[in-house]
Amino acid sequence: MIDKDNNQQAYDRGVSVFSPEGRLYQVEYAREAVKRGYPGVGIRTEESVVFASKSNPTSSLVVKDSIEKVHKIEDYIGAVSAGYTPDGRRLVDQVRVGTQQEQLRYGSHASVHTVAKQVADHLQESTQVGGRRPYGASLIIAGVDETGPRLFEVEPGGTPTEWRAVAEGRNRGAIIEHFENEYTKDISHDGAIELAVNSLDEFSEGGVTTESVDVAVISEDEPFYQMTEDELAVYCEEE
Amino acid sequence: MIDKDNNQQAYDRGVSVFSPEGRLYQVEYAREAVKRGYPGVGIRTEESVVFASKSNPTSSLVVKDSIEKVHKIEDYIGAVSAGYTPDGRRLVDQVRVGTQQEQLRYGSHASVHTVAKQVADHLQESTQVGGRRPYGASLIIAGVDETGPRLFEVEPGGTPTEWRAVAEGRNRGAIIEHFENEYTKDISHDGAIELAVNSLDEFSEGGVTTESVDVAVISEDEPFYQMTEDELAVYCEEE
Amino acid sequence: MIDKDNNQQAYDRGVSVFSPEGRLYQVEYAREAVKRGYPGVGIRTEESVVFASKSNPTSSLVVKDSIEKVHKIEDYIGAVSAGYTPDGRRLVDQVRVGTQQEQLRYGSHASVHTVAKQVADHLQESTQVGGRRPYGASLIIAGVDETGPRLFEVEPGGTPTEWRAVAEGRNRGAIIEHFENEYTKDISHDGAIELAVNSLDEFSEGGVTTESVDVAVISEDEPFYQMTEDELAVYCEEE
Amino acid sequence: MIDKDNNQQAYDRGVSVFSPEGRLYQVEYAREAVKRGYPGVGIRTEESVVFASKSNPTSSLVVKDSIEKVHKIEDYIGAVSAGYTPDGRRLVDQVRVGTQQEQLRYGSHASVHTVAKQVADHLQESTQVGGRRPYGASLIIAGVDETGPRLFEVEPGGTPTEWRAVAEGRNRGAIIEHFENEYTKDISHDGAIELAVNSLDEFSEGGVTTESVDVAVISEDEPFYQMTEDELAVYCEEE
Amino acid sequence: MIDKDNNQQAYDRGVSVFSPEGRLYQVEYAREAVKRGYPGVGIRTEESVVFASKSNPTSSLVVKDSIEKVHKIEDYIGAVSAGYTPDGRRLVDQVRVGTQQEQLRYGSHASVHTVAKQVADHLQESTQVGGRRPYGASLIIAGVDETGPRLFEVEPGGTPTEWRAVAEGRNRGAIIEHFENEYTKDISHDGAIELAVNSLDEFSEGGVTTESVDVAVISEDEPFYQMTEDELAVYCEEE
Amino acid sequence: MIDKDNNQQAYDRGVSVFSPEGRLYQVEYAREAVKRGYPGVGIRTEESVVFASKSNPTSSLVVKDSIEKVHKIEDYIGAVSAGYTPDGRRLVDQVRVGTQQEQLRYGSHASVHTVAKQVADHLQESTQVGGRRPYGASLIIAGVDETGPRLFEVEPGGTPTEWRAVAEGRNRGAIIEHFENEYTKDISHDGAIELAVNSLDEFSEGGVTTESVDVAVISEDEPFYQMTEDELAVYCEEE
Amino acid sequence: MIDKDNNQQAYDRGVSVFSPEGRLYQVEYAREAVKRGYPGVGIRTEESVVFASKSNPTSSLVVKDSIEKVHKIEDYIGAVSAGYTPDGRRLVDQVRVGTQQEQLRYGSHASVHTVAKQVADHLQESTQVGGRRPYGASLIIAGVDETGPRLFEVEPGGTPTEWRAVAEGRNRGAIIEHFENEYTKDISHDGAIELAVNSLDEFSEGGVTTESVDVAVISEDEPFYQMTEDELAVYCEEE
Repeated sequence: MIDKDNNQQAYDRGVSVFSPEGRLYQVEYAREAVKRGYPGVGIRTEESVVFASKSNPTSSLVVKDSIEKVHKIEDYIGAVSAGYTPDGRRLVDQVRVGTQQEQLRYGSHASVHTVAKQVADHLQESTQVGGRRPYGASLIIAGVDETGPRLFEVEPGGTPTEWRAVAEGRNRGAIIEHFENEYTKDISHDGAIELAVNSLDEFSEGGVTTESVDVAVISEDEPFYQMTEDELAVYCEEE
Repeated sequence: MIDKDNNQQAYDRGVSVFSPEGRLYQVEYAREAVKRGYPGVGIRTEESVVFASKSNPTSSLVVKDSIEKVHKIEDYIGAVSAGYTPDGRRLVDQVRVGTQQEQLRYGSHASVHTVAKQVADHLQESTQVGGRRPYGASLIIAGVDETGPRLFEVEPGGTPTEWRAVAEGRNRGAIIEHFENEYTKDISHDGAIELAVNSLDEFSEGGVTTESVDVAVISEDEPFYQMTEDELAVYCEEE
Repeated sequence: MIDKDNNQQAYDRGVSVFSPEGRLYQVEYAREAVKRGYPGVGIRTEESVVFASKSNPTSSLVVKDSIEKVHKIEDYIGAVSAGYTPDGRRLVDQVRVGTQQEQLRYGSHASVHTVAKQVADHLQESTQVGGRRPYGASLIIAGVDETGPRLFEVEPGGTPTEWRAVAEGRNRGAIIEHFENEYTKDISHDGAIELAVNSLDEFSEGGVTTESVDVAVISEDEPFYQMTEDELAVYCEEE
Repeated sequence: MIDKDNNQQAYDRGVSVFSPEGRLYQVEYAREAVKRGYPGVGIRTEESVVFASKSNPTSSLVVKDSIEKVHKIEDYIGAVSAGYTPDGRRLVDQVRVGTQQEQLRYGSHASVHTVAKQVADHLQESTQVGGRRPYGASLIIAGVDETGPRLFEVEPGGTPTEWRAVAEGRNRGAIIEHFENEYTKDISHDGAIELAVNSLDEFSEGGVTTESVDVAVISEDEPFYQMTEDELAVYCEEE
Repeated sequence: MIDKDNNQQAYDRGVSVFSPEGRLYQVEYAREAVKRGYPGVGIRTEESVVFASKSNPTSSLVVKDSIEKVHKIEDYIGAVSAGYTPDGRRLVDQVRVGTQQEQLRYGSHASVHTVAKQVADHLQESTQVGGRRPYGASLIIAGVDETGPRLFEVEPGGTPTEWRAVAEGRNRGAIIEHFENEYTKDISHDGAIELAVNSLDEFSEGGVTTESVDVAVISEDEPFYQMTEDELAVYCEEE
Repeated sequence: MIDKDNNQQAYDRGVSVFSPEGRLYQVEYAREAVKRGYPGVGIRTEESVVFASKSNPTSSLVVKDSIEKVHKIEDYIGAVSAGYTPDGRRLVDQVRVGTQQEQLRYGSHASVHTVAKQVADHLQESTQVGGRRPYGASLIIAGVDETGPRLFEVEPGGTPTEWRAVAEGRNRGAIIEHFENEYTKDISHDGAIELAVNSLDEFSEGGVTTESVDVAVISEDEPFYQMTEDELAVYCEEE
Repeated sequence: MIDKDNNQQAYDRGVSVFSPEGRLYQVEYAREAVKRGYPGVGIRTEESVVFASKSNPTSSLVVKDSIEKVHKIEDYIGAVSAGYTPDGRRLVDQVRVGTQQEQLRYGSHASVHTVAKQVADHLQESTQVGGRRPYGASLIIAGVDETGPRLFEVEPGGTPTEWRAVAEGRNRGAIIEHFENEYTKDISHDGAIELAVNSLDEFSEGGVTTESVDVAVISEDEPFYQMTEDELAVYCEEE
């Protein structure tokens, strides 16, 4: 996907520099960092949003809850990060800051769209201004606000895009294609959870178990909720 | 258009550096980034301005409205960006800031010309002062103010130019030539919409459909209005 | 004019660096940028100053007035820029700032000389202090103040020179030679307009028409005035 | 583990730069610095946390207490560092600052999790922002707070992970594997001390003696306590 | 005068760097810039100082007065610059600032020596501190103060030297040698003017005329006075 | 000790850069600067600390007292530096600043340990933050405080280590080995002075005389005292 | 003295960088700049200090007094600089600032030692902190204060050393050797002047005359006094 001839090396080590073809190689390399990460998915139904992520406990001694891949931002907004883990954590901090500012300005529920745009601004700046590198992570930001359920993906270059169902990280393309075939606008809440879990099971090496998958949901009448392994059992069995 | 001999490489990686021929290669490369983007057009009639852009939903799961290519700035000013998407979003933010300042200073309607000049200043600075790269995006800024309908294009180097009809992005030259043949000063509002849609249909790969084209209009008695797919159907059929 | 042996390349990419011969190549390259631009001229008579510039509408759809080459600074000061267009616009902003400061300090009429010197200071600084490149533009600044009509040229290195008649941009040398032959101290206001238009007609490719030439005048009893195409017709015909 | 072809060298000397594969080599090299350091371990029981570290007195003249590897942060939080010693000392300072801030905000007991996250933020920033290198050290931060005993490891990239038992530094992998076999959730306080000492004895060159091992413990009813050589004798003998 | 072997190039492009022989090449190159400029001279008599400079109107259209080579600083201090013109102008600004500060501190007459030292400090700093290049200009600063007539030369490295008669710019060496032969301590005011004009006539290509030479004088009972062409006629004829 | 293949050169000129093996070459080179310096030693007895250093008067005209190698910090703290002399002087200034701050905070006697840690922090920072190089010097800081006699060595990387007896500079290893054989915990004050002088005599080229050795002592009932040549005679003779 | 193999060039152009052998080449090169300068000497007697320097009037037109090589700092402190002249002047400014601060703090007589240390600090900093080069000059600072006559030399690296008699600049080694043979502790004031003048006469090309040597003295009952040519005649004749 990225050709490495000598000419490219002349332009790919400085964030602030365009190549003669008008490309920003450092941003493209940051996207490669995203592709190296475990996959995360988000699905929107008519009354809820569903997050799922494969977690990667490298040892049985790791406290599973501490591998934060699905993050609660506030009662009705959550996020999943993919890519270089420390950068993802930092971006989630950005979302939290943006959300708190939104709430202070407009009352109880923050607008998911505005929060996604603020993170996008932060990401774009890190690709244009000198003195820092781009973030090697992308985010799925979703929640329920006055306009109903909303789901955005923000990528390292700084573009926020709204999706009905989206994936990030390894095998992103394959999972999105899977969603294009399986997702319907009137998908049920349960159907969305099932689709999310199945997609991670099918398109990640070794599949997922109730232990290795994280699922969280937000619906209009229930704030951010991280599902238990017991609750997940039914979806993992069905597979 | 850009010759890549060894001598050029000596001068094209630093924003603050002229080549022996007095050229700024980084600005020229930023213009290449603009040429890589989807086309956008703007047309001015005697009582209105029309914006059109081909949107690029990479998947059927993308919420079409979220691919912001035609942006409402305020009631009577809009903008279309072309080129590297995250930079275009950032520039639109600049336009919004400029517009709000104008309104605070001079009352209800902001001057389109002044807003265009402010964005141009910001772009020029990013090509002269160290520590940041140029923007890889251009903007069509248009609207209706006390002087009537106005339409400007601002390019990465920082020059604002007023046009009656203009295009940016891929195939810019061909579309402008098409406008030179088809545009008349007394073009009707409907005629302008038709011309805008046709130009994108004819000069972009695969043409456009009611789904893949965004059209917005501003007229003296109606503020920024984004046309629906139903309303666009008649223009796309005519083709 | 500029020899490109290997030795030169060692010294021409850093603004803050002299070559062993005591030359500042970046400033010389900025002057090349000026030579690449459309020509502008300024002529001083005993009671007025005349500005003329060839404008370059790249398309019939460009609104001619928006190609600002002759700029009103305040009632009795104007400027013509040549070279890299975005830099010229920025310099004109510098002139405006300088003029406003002068007026605040000394009352109604700003001193043309002082304004020219302030812009020259700004230009010199951009060739000596790190973190920004020189401007690739020069300015003719002229007007009428308490000392009568005054006309200055400021070049990228930062030297202000007072002229009776001067040209900048492409074919500068040829036009100045033309002025040396044709200009007389008691040239009439009309004669100056005619000389200005003729010089652009003769020494630019394709000559000029009432459409492609911009002329503005300032005289002791009439502030900055941009001539109309009708008014210009007589000068273009005479040719 | 790290391949050194020519291409890599192009991307591994600047902190702010991704390689074409999306890797941050400077962070990976900082992890190599951690692997060069003496090992440290941390084990959590149901009512306590245990720290152990092999100290490296290079001479019999060194005052053993001064080789600080197990650090008291406050009454109920401690830390063990591994890797490049001066960087480890600096990170411990960061933990102390974070802890004091937590206490000022929330009363007597600081939250171990929050402190771990603050250090992780500091570490991530040093890998993204220009002007400083990453830290060549990792930390085990553990303690007892309102949520009970907690134990985190923070690595040079800036990821905090919660563990039941973890090792850092030389032979980290082998010691963790040893823990995976020997650790049980209901391990006793004494059992944890024994396991910690044994792991260092078995997996470091030359083993450990009461002199070369540092052990500290925190339990719900006893604040940070550094064990004496006499107290350690029983654990070292058992081996 | 400057040998250009490969070793030199390693040390001559950074202001802040000594060569292995303890030389600062950038300062030496700045002195080359001075040698490229038109010559200026200064002569001190027992009751006055005389400045002369060859001006270089590149065209008959240049307003001769605007080629400022002899600058009035205040009533009893003047300056002549040689070398790169924009830098010379900037240095004159430094002298003016220094003089105004002196006057504010010590009353009506500024000390010529103090002003010369302040400019020297500014020049030295630009050769030692990063972020700016040295000035490519030197100054003759002279005047009459409480200690009588004083005359200093300040060169790009930042050394102020007091002279009885001195030259700067092209052919400096030859003119100073001429002064050494012709100057006497009891030279009359008229004799000094004659010597100054003659030296420029003899040692510059094409000699000088009343039009191409600038002469200014300061004496104990007459402040800075720029001589007219009529007054100069007698000195140019004598030649 | 340091291998100089080509690969190393790629990583050893930037302070903020790790090598692929996780090494900081600039810090290692700074330690080489320490090894080039004259040796200094420090010995702690049960009621005192002893400093000794070989001084290097390059000429009989040097005032011996001015070769400060053993520095009084305050009444009960002293320091010996080794390595690059100007850096050593600067570090001693750091110790003085730290000591004064300690005294202001905690009353009359400063804590030797705290002062040593503050200097270590300063040293570590100079190896991690851009814009300055590491210090090419190490310090022995010792004194008597409320906890009794204390003796620390701080090396260029920023690690403070507590010793009973230590050496720094040339032949450090050999002298420490000598101490390991000769030092006993209950060494008398006189015995410590003798051991210190002997070690410098034996392990430095040409040995030491009462003229070339500096000795200072601090004990519980006597503040910092620099021994005279007469007092030293007995220790030098014994040898 | 300085070997120029390829390896050295890798480390000698950045102030903040150690070579693998622990050397700071830029400081060593600055010392070369000192060696290129005219010699200066300082001698201390039991009740006075004597400064002498060979001045280098490049022309008979130079006002000899303006070649400041022996500088009065305040009534009882003076200084002689050697090396790169502009840097020497700047350092003398540092001494003046330091002296004024001392006087404000401690009353009428400043301590020569403290002033020397302050200049040394300034010099050291310019070799360690980025953004400026070292000074290419050294200073002899001497005077009479409460402790009697004192004489220090401060070199570019930033080490202050106290001497009884010292030389700096060209032939420093030979002159110091001469002093070692001729100087006695009870040298008379006259004898010191004679020794100083003789040393410059013998060890500089062409010797010295009453015109080319500067001598100044400070004694306990007479402040800084610059000797006249008449007074020097006797010392120059004796030779």
